[in-house]
Amino acid sequence: MPQLRQIHTSQPSTSSAIDRSVPDFPVAAVDDESHYFASNEPPEYLDELVKEAQCFVDEHKSKGNKVVLVTSGGTTVPLENNTVRFIDNFSAGTRGATSAEYFLEEGYAVIFLHREFSLLPYSRHYSHTTNCFLDYMAEGKDGSLVIADKYRDEMHQVWKKYNEARDKNLLLLLPFTTVNQYLFSLRAIAQVMDTLGTSALLYLAAAVSDFFIPVSRMPEHKIQAQDHMEGGKLVVNLDPVPKFLRRLVDNWAPGAMITSFKLETDKDLLLRKCTQSLERYHHQLVIGNLLQTRKKEVVFVTNTKQQWYRLKDGDGENKEIESLIIPAVIQQHDEYIKNHA
Amino acid sequence: MPQLRQIHTSQPSTSSAIDRSVPDFPVAAVDDESHYFASNEPPEYLDELVKEAQCFVDEHKSKGNKVVLVTSGGTTVPLENNTVRFIDNFSAGTRGATSAEYFLEEGYAVIFLHREFSLLPYSRHYSHTTNCFLDYMAEGKDGSLVIADKYRDEMHQVWKKYNEARDKNLLLLLPFTTVNQYLFSLRAIAQVMDTLGTSALLYLAAAVSDFFIPVSRMPEHKIQAQDHMEGGKLVVNLDPVPKFLRRLVDNWAPGAMITSFKLETDKDLLLRKCTQSLERYHHQLVIGNLLQTRKKEVVFVTNTKQQWYRLKDGDGENKEIESLIIPAVIQQHDEYIKNHA
Repeated sequence: MPQLRQIHTSQPSTSSAIDRSVPDFPVAAVDDESHYFASNEPPEYLDELVKEAQCFVDEHKSKGNKVVLVTSGGTTVPLENNTVRFIDNFSAGTRGATSAEYFLEEGYAVIFLHREFSLLPYSRHYSHTTNCFLDYMAEGKDGSLVIADKYRDEMHQVWKKYNEARDKNLLLLLPFTTVNQYLFSLRAIAQVMDTLGTSALLYLAAAVSDFFIPVSRMPEHKIQAQDHMEGGKLVVNLDPVPKFLRRLVDNWAPGAMITSFKLETDKDLLLRKCTQSLERYHHQLVIGNLLQTRKKEVVFVTNTKQQWYRLKDGDGENKEIESLIIPAVIQQHDEYIKNHA
Repeated sequence: MPQLRQIHTSQPSTSSAIDRSVPDFPVAAVDDESHYFASNEPPEYLDELVKEAQCFVDEHKSKGNKVVLVTSGGTTVPLENNTVRFIDNFSAGTRGATSAEYFLEEGYAVIFLHREFSLLPYSRHYSHTTNCFLDYMAEGKDGSLVIADKYRDEMHQVWKKYNEARDKNLLLLLPFTTVNQYLFSLRAIAQVMDTLGTSALLYLAAAVSDFFIPVSRMPEHKIQAQDHMEGGKLVVNLDPVPKFLRRLVDNWAPGAMITSFKLETDKDLLLRKCTQSLERYHHQLVIGNLLQTRKKEVVFVTNTKQQWYRLKDGDGENKEIESLIIPAVIQQHDEYIKNHA
C-alpha cells in the first residue's frame, strides 16, 4: 500500500485559539492614518496594483456591473529588514476564496485581494488538500495521461466557471504578504472603488494582524538581535496596527457598502463584539462566526437586526455556508443601493 | 485579456536577508537535550509517525536499500497556546522537494520530513506557480475535459515517476509545522534509522528557527498579552533553539552519514561558516550556498576538501543544480559506507 499519507500538524485548537480577554484598541483617527502611511513604506508594486484595479473598475463601471472587493487570508509581520522571519496569522483563505466564487455566480466583478499562495477561487477545490495534484490523473485507453474518470465531470464544471470568469474579465487577483502591503493596498483599492459609489461592496474576510513593527524600529530590532546574544534571547517589540476600518468608512470609500467579519470562540461574546464593531466603525454589516462552527453557521448583525444563517442537517457535504451568506449580503447591498439612490 | 495575473509580494531581498553578524550559539550538550525534550511536549501524533517510519525503515532494510531522510521547508514558532499567530521562517521547500526526486531516481528510499503545505516531490512542478491548476486543462475534441496538449507529455513523465515511487513504497511523507514538532520528529526518525547503520543518510535541508518559546512560558506570554495593552504594545521573548546537530551525530544516529546546509549572503563568510559547522558538529558534509546563487552553484565542504558544483552557462532552464548535488552526495555516501565496512 502507498504510504503517501499526511499526519495533520497545523489544526488550530478550537478551545483557546483566540485570546479575546484584551480590550480593543482605539479607533484610528485621521492623525493615525496620516502617521501610519507617512512613516511606513508603500509596497514597490503599489502603482502597478492601482493601475490594474483602476482599469478593472473603469471597465465594470462602464458596463454598469457591481464590484466587490474580497479580502482573504492572513497577513505577515516581518521581524527583520527582510522576509526570512515573520509573524503570521493562521488562515488558509477558505472563506474569501469560496465567497468570491458565489459573488461571481451572482454577476459581481470581483477584486480578490489575497495572501499570496492562500486559496484562490476555483483552484481551491484542488489545492491545500491531502490529495496531490497528480492523484487526479490516470492513464487512458490509448496510454496517454488523462483526468481520472471519477474526477473529470466535476472538474470540468469548475474549469468552465473559472474560464468564464477569466474570459469575461470578472476576476482580478491581487496578492499581499505583509500587513503593511495589505493596508496600503486596501486603502488604494478602496479609493479607486470610490468612483463606483454605492455599486461598490467591500467584503473584508482577511485575518489582519493586530500588531506590527514600524519600519522606523527595524534597525532597533537589529540591535536587539545582537543584544540578545548576551542572554541568548530574542526580544521582539510590536506596536498595535491602527484600526483603519473607520477611515475606510469615512474617507476611503464612503459610498461603498462595507461588510466585516468577527471571529470568536465564545458564543456569549460574539453578538456583543459584533455590535461593538458596528458602533465603533459605523459600517453596514458585521458577519459574526465562531471558530468551531464557522463552516455551518454565521450571524448577520446590522443596526436594525441580528439574523442567523445555518446549514440544515439534511444538507449534503457539498453545500457551503457561503451559498447562504452571499445571496443575503447581495440582498442587503441591493437595499443599500436603493436607499442611497 | 484575462487579468488573472500575480504581482510577486514575498521574494526575500538578497542583500540583507540573513543577519549573520551574530555569533553562533553553543553546541547543545547531553544536558540541553534532556532538558529540551523533558520540558517541551511531544506532538500528539509522534507515536504514529514513529510507527510509520519504523515500518518503512524495516521494509527497506530487509531489501538492502539505502534510506535518506530529507528535511524540507521552514519551521514555525507559535506565539500563543494555539496556532493562530506564529513566527515563521521563509522557505518554499524547493531544495528539499527537488533533492528528494533525485534521490528516488538513484534508488534511495526517501523519508520526506517536510513543512505541511510546502513543496512536495513531483507535485512541486505544478504547485506554488503563478499558473492555476486549471490552466493545465482544456476541452478535448469530444467536449470533455482533458490535459492540455502542451503539458500532457511532460506531466505524464512526472506522473509516472510519482506513481512508481508510490507503488514501490519508496517515498514516505511526514509533515511538521512547529519547530518543536520538527525537533521531536527528527530525533525519533534518526533513532529509528540508526538500525540501518551506514546505509542511512541524513540530508538536512529544512530552515529551522533559531528561536522558540518554551511551553513553560506560554502562560507568562499570555499575561504579557494583557500587560501590553497598557502601552498598546506586544512584547515577545524567545529562547535560542538548542543546536542539536551534535547530538544527532553522537547519539541519535551515530552510524549515519549526515549532510547539513549553510545558507549565507556573504561569499567571503561562506567557506568559514561551513568549516566551523563541521568542526562544531563533527558530521561528514556541509553544503554551502549563497541566497543569491543557490539555484546555480553550491560548495561541498568536508574535512579534507572544498569543491564547487556549478551549472554551466549552456545548461538549459530545466537543468537543476540538484542533478549535480545528489550524485555527488551519493558518491560520498558510498565511500562512507565502504570506509566504515
